[in-house]
Amino acid sequence: MEMLDIIMKKRNGGKLSREEIAFAVNGFTKGEIPDYQMSAFLMAVYFKGMDADETFELTDVMRLSGDIVDLSRIKGVKVDKHSTGGVGDKTTLIVAPIVASRGVPVAKMSGRGLGFSGGTIDKLEAIRGYRTELTEKEFFEQIDRIGIALIGQTGMITPADKKIYALRDVTGTVENMSLIASSIMSKKLAAGSDAIVLDVKCGSGAFMHNIDDARELARIMCEIGDSAGKKTVAMITDMDQPLGNAVGNALEVEEAVQTLKGEGPEDITELSVRLAGMMIALSRGITPEEGTDIARGAITDGSALEKLKELVAAQGGDTAVIDDTSLLPKAECSMEIKAGKGGFVTKIDAEKIGIASRMTGAGREKKDDVIDPAAGIMLRKKRGDITKPGEVLAVLYGKDRDVLAAAAETAGAAFEITESEPEKVDLIKEIIGA
Amino acid sequence: MEMLDIIMKKRNGGKLSREEIAFAVNGFTKGEIPDYQMSAFLMAVYFKGMDADETFELTDVMRLSGDIVDLSRIKGVKVDKHSTGGVGDKTTLIVAPIVASRGVPVAKMSGRGLGFSGGTIDKLEAIRGYRTELTEKEFFEQIDRIGIALIGQTGMITPADKKIYALRDVTGTVENMSLIASSIMSKKLAAGSDAIVLDVKCGSGAFMHNIDDARELARIMCEIGDSAGKKTVAMITDMDQPLGNAVGNALEVEEAVQTLKGEGPEDITELSVRLAGMMIALSRGITPEEGTDIARGAITDGSALEKLKELVAAQGGDTAVIDDTSLLPKAECSMEIKAGKGGFVTKIDAEKIGIASRMTGAGREKKDDVIDPAAGIMLRKKRGDITKPGEVLAVLYGKDRDVLAAAAETAGAAFEITESEPEKVDLIKEIIGA
Repeated sequence: MEMLDIIMKKRNGGKLSREEIAFAVNGFTKGEIPDYQMSAFLMAVYFKGMDADETFELTDVMRLSGDIVDLSRIKGVKVDKHSTGGVGDKTTLIVAPIVASRGVPVAKMSGRGLGFSGGTIDKLEAIRGYRTELTEKEFFEQIDRIGIALIGQTGMITPADKKIYALRDVTGTVENMSLIASSIMSKKLAAGSDAIVLDVKCGSGAFMHNIDDARELARIMCEIGDSAGKKTVAMITDMDQPLGNAVGNALEVEEAVQTLKGEGPEDITELSVRLAGMMIALSRGITPEEGTDIARGAITDGSALEKLKELVAAQGGDTAVIDDTSLLPKAECSMEIKAGKGGFVTKIDAEKIGIASRMTGAGREKKDDVIDPAAGIMLRKKRGDITKPGEVLAVLYGKDRDVLAAAAETAGAAFEITESEPEKVDLIKEIIGA
Repeated sequence: MEMLDIIMKKRNGGKLSREEIAFAVNGFTKGEIPDYQMSAFLMAVYFKGMDADETFELTDVMRLSGDIVDLSRIKGVKVDKHSTGGVGDKTTLIVAPIVASRGVPVAKMSGRGLGFSGGTIDKLEAIRGYRTELTEKEFFEQIDRIGIALIGQTGMITPADKKIYALRDVTGTVENMSLIASSIMSKKLAAGSDAIVLDVKCGSGAFMHNIDDARELARIMCEIGDSAGKKTVAMITDMDQPLGNAVGNALEVEEAVQTLKGEGPEDITELSVRLAGMMIALSRGITPEEGTDIARGAITDGSALEKLKELVAAQGGDTAVIDDTSLLPKAECSMEIKAGKGGFVTKIDAEKIGIASRMTGAGREKKDDVIDPAAGIMLRKKRGDITKPGEVLAVLYGKDRDVLAAAAETAGAAFEITESEPEKVDLIKEIIGA
């Protein structure tokens, strides 16, 4: 078999076999197929696509390229959750304690990744002392004991996906449904859960800008999951404005704690209980509505917050910051963005807020960039709110006034203020695969 | 400027500026842009194409990437000839002496290249002692003295094209009209002639399999040439069967000599005088028909053959082989292919003959393969000929009986024999740009 033939077959619109996909992916991962052939192949896939069979085989080959997590020793139906990524998305910090507090085992490995703010692991590291690395023994013992562990992804999960994604990122071959879906699902399937709830973000701050694309991606991922024998449900949710008010690592931990206390913003609260509800439903075989009621109850009675504290304590973190979030890292500088005119906030461009957040130091542009846990943006107004001229729309936090000034300009441009009230946008737009 | 942006612009169907094309090509040539980005870019060009402006700019940027040959010190209108490559194409060996014998200066650098048999330079090296490398001084002095020099391409002509072509070859990005046209024309324009005659091959043994593609490629190349201020004419010629009877280096030199003696096969004779005629026409400002008459005269009166001898002598070759072609390298083994049944030869698949020729040792698959000058194939029948069962269709020459047996099987499959006479095929199908 020759890589050139595989490139040309795909380029000419042919359907690749399992063997051909495995030859390309494994050869590239081992360094036997050069990156210049892989990038040409990926561009051919960009233009010619992959059908359901090819997409599943690609996912499966990538899944098998590294370690496969075996969670079978944990009792119960394990349900994983994955978000395609957005601005202000701290749902894992909220959803994981909720479901664990109601007996759904959480054995979760999360990523760091590039982006507007850090990944779940970066957020957890804003808590002093929190260990994101556990030994395998520690990981399983902790889940046995308290029903939850939240650690960083080990280096050996889907190395093929890592290497391919890094190449896609610099060759203009990211934006293909099969490549996106297989990248996400290979990791989720290797992570060993029994069922998967996907949060497919849709809007200006998400990878999928419109509902049609989001629905297509959701459909492909559910199909992959089901082909792999793992029940998979996708919720398509709004990411036209940031989720919640906090964007940034310590800021988002604070908002997660507030939400678990029942004092969080409406959107993040609602999305968290719906996602948690779906996970509980899949784990227990009850309806999503019943699951949502149970999730809400775990906030109301304080057990979810208690579970978060148990988690932080078990992984060596300082639980005092949960009781008093003012103990979280604090930024040296802050800067307010004020409304130039009065009216309704009709739009808060999530992408612009995300870029501004990264500028403050809350996210990474390059892999080696160091995150400032205290940096980020707090929104004081959300879509639909009324503002007077000169009222504060958002506050930026960071280390350097000049940097904040530049970020404030970008963040300020995210706000659109008009005289008429904007139409209401559904937070949860569609559910696929339920 | 970022290469990623250029890749995505082309991927999304955008039109690239001169600056963007120069950034990509020069960056890649200097090693500043990695090959994996270039190959993704080339695949995007494969799918999205380039318009006339982009194609010209690409050609011009590649032209300027290395040495530009200055032929201005040679008097007269210099006309270059280029063939897109086929099986049994030894026209340069015939055309160059014809036009030189009639006062059109020939200052030609030819390639080796990969392929079914060697390039012009490989063919000339079948003549004992022929020096394919001359110093610049020797080159120009020889043209002053005898009006012709035929040497190997220097290493520094269009290095950008060389590097890009090598990448296209292994990434499935060869088959794009703009990339093919710019590759050919960048070299031709850097080679310094005043006008260009292109022989665009069309058929099973050529890069262009059908007349529409050949016409499109011819049109694009003529457009590039004219944009560069060099009169360019393209002749689209048949390559459905091999040209002439000889395929292989020494075999083709022998056939070229026979043709210059007026004893060559009809097709190679006709094509050579038509190509030479067009070159003479462009050089002197006369009609192609007048040029063709003049070219024919140079064969009839022996002056073209005399000019070939002068050329060989000037470059250190043994002219005895011209007088007696039996002195050319002779193969150790030969093997006949015989007709299984009687009838008309209706097809001789040029590509299959080409592959068989390469198998005998006459061509290169990889750059470092060593050519056997004596190897190759002599056709005894051409399309339209009648054969009896058991009559010899072709003879293969080489070093090794087992290799020849395998090549004979491939070559044998090239022949199609039927009961009805095939339709006549035009040797010269169309002329573009005249």
